[in-house]
Amino acid sequence: MEFSSKLLQEAVEQVSFLPGIGKRTALRLVLHLLNQDQEVTTDLAKSLLDLKLKIKRCKNCHNISDSEICDICANPKRDQSIVCVVEDIRDIMAIENTEQYRGVYHVLNGKINPIEGIGPNDLTIESLTQKAKEGQINEIIFALSSTMEGDTTNFYIYKQIENFDIKMSTIARGISVGDELEFADEVTLGRSIVHRIPFEKSLKA
Amino acid sequence: MEFSSKLLQEAVEQVSFLPGIGKRTALRLVLHLLNQDQEVTTDLAKSLLDLKLKIKRCKNCHNISDSEICDICANPKRDQSIVCVVEDIRDIMAIENTEQYRGVYHVLNGKINPIEGIGPNDLTIESLTQKAKEGQINEIIFALSSTMEGDTTNFYIYKQIENFDIKMSTIARGISVGDELEFADEVTLGRSIVHRIPFEKSLKA
Ligand SMILES: [Zn+2]
Ligand SMILES: [Zn+2]
Repeated sequence: MEFSSKLLQEAVEQVSFLPGIGKRTALRLVLHLLNQDQEVTTDLAKSLLDLKLKIKRCKNCHNISDSEICDICANPKRDQSIVCVVEDIRDIMAIENTEQYRGVYHVLNGKINPIEGIGPNDLTIESLTQKAKEGQINEIIFALSSTMEGDTTNFYIYKQIENFDIKMSTIARGISVGDELEFADEVTLGRSIVHRIPFEKSLKA
Repeated sequence: MEFSSKLLQEAVEQVSFLPGIGKRTALRLVLHLLNQDQEVTTDLAKSLLDLKLKIKRCKNCHNISDSEICDICANPKRDQSIVCVVEDIRDIMAIENTEQYRGVYHVLNGKINPIEGIGPNDLTIESLTQKAKEGQINEIIFALSSTMEGDTTNFYIYKQIENFDIKMSTIARGISVGDELEFADEVTLGRSIVHRIPFEKSLKA
């Protein structure tokens, strides 16, 4: 793709670095911005920079948050002894939508994936086992997607924690194996939280 | 969609203002940026702002340009007396790719579209008829997409200019009616430039 303008080319290249956005889509988005008022671009750029500079990770659960401790962890009505392990904030949003869960979360920021070079130390597993050691947790619910990477991550955490007196379960799957959590309908997902099964049992399935 | 962070919510909303980007996709893009180095977001925001603040429209043809006169208009090898009328820069890029055209362009910045409230005065038609009046143009080639809006726009310009001694043609259509120019293959598009037909003839088709 040849551009008549270096500025245009640069903007299209930057936008096409985003996942799932090709050069053609990037050009369409950039031309759209060019046809809008200055304000539209300024607001977009400002909100992205603001987010990146000011966003915090909850010190307790690593959820994306505007404060040191996220709203869920700071809520006295939530049961801090039940921890639901998720991959990222989208899974929290999906589970919160079901209104079936009153515990807290632990955000791993990914799954163990040897092919992409993501090991246990790239995730927040250490701080989860630390909480487990300190005796703060009665139950851990694994809610990772049931892919090979999800299963590997579940099992790795299970082995770290199995000697502590902590109940471990995985969410029941009414949804088919391989499905991403965030695309599940609320009813199915809500039910799978309520009917969660002990982790050891899930290994035999 | 409920967010645990106002900053996150704001960024997702801003991104989802872009055409064809839903809330879910916006969230995915924003989370991607959050997982990247600061630099990635800074570069993206900077290039969008730079583009919007510094970009120019060529004084001659309204093409997007880094300078007062775009590279095509400034090129002494291009025939300034042949003007190809296009909707936007993507059509210029498509035609330039064919390497079949040695004239210059006139960018309308859209098509007449009464339903969307876009009239002749919202486009750059005035500056085209001005160039025609001044006797600078020998031939005008209409290269708008062959939709109702494209045909309406062609005809409006044709009526403005028919009393001047200017040859008017439309690009030959090997591509099917209704297709967008930018998606046409190079060979077909190149041929349609070479075999352009007088505009009056195209009205009878
Ligand atoms: Zn938290
Ligand atoms: Zn120009």
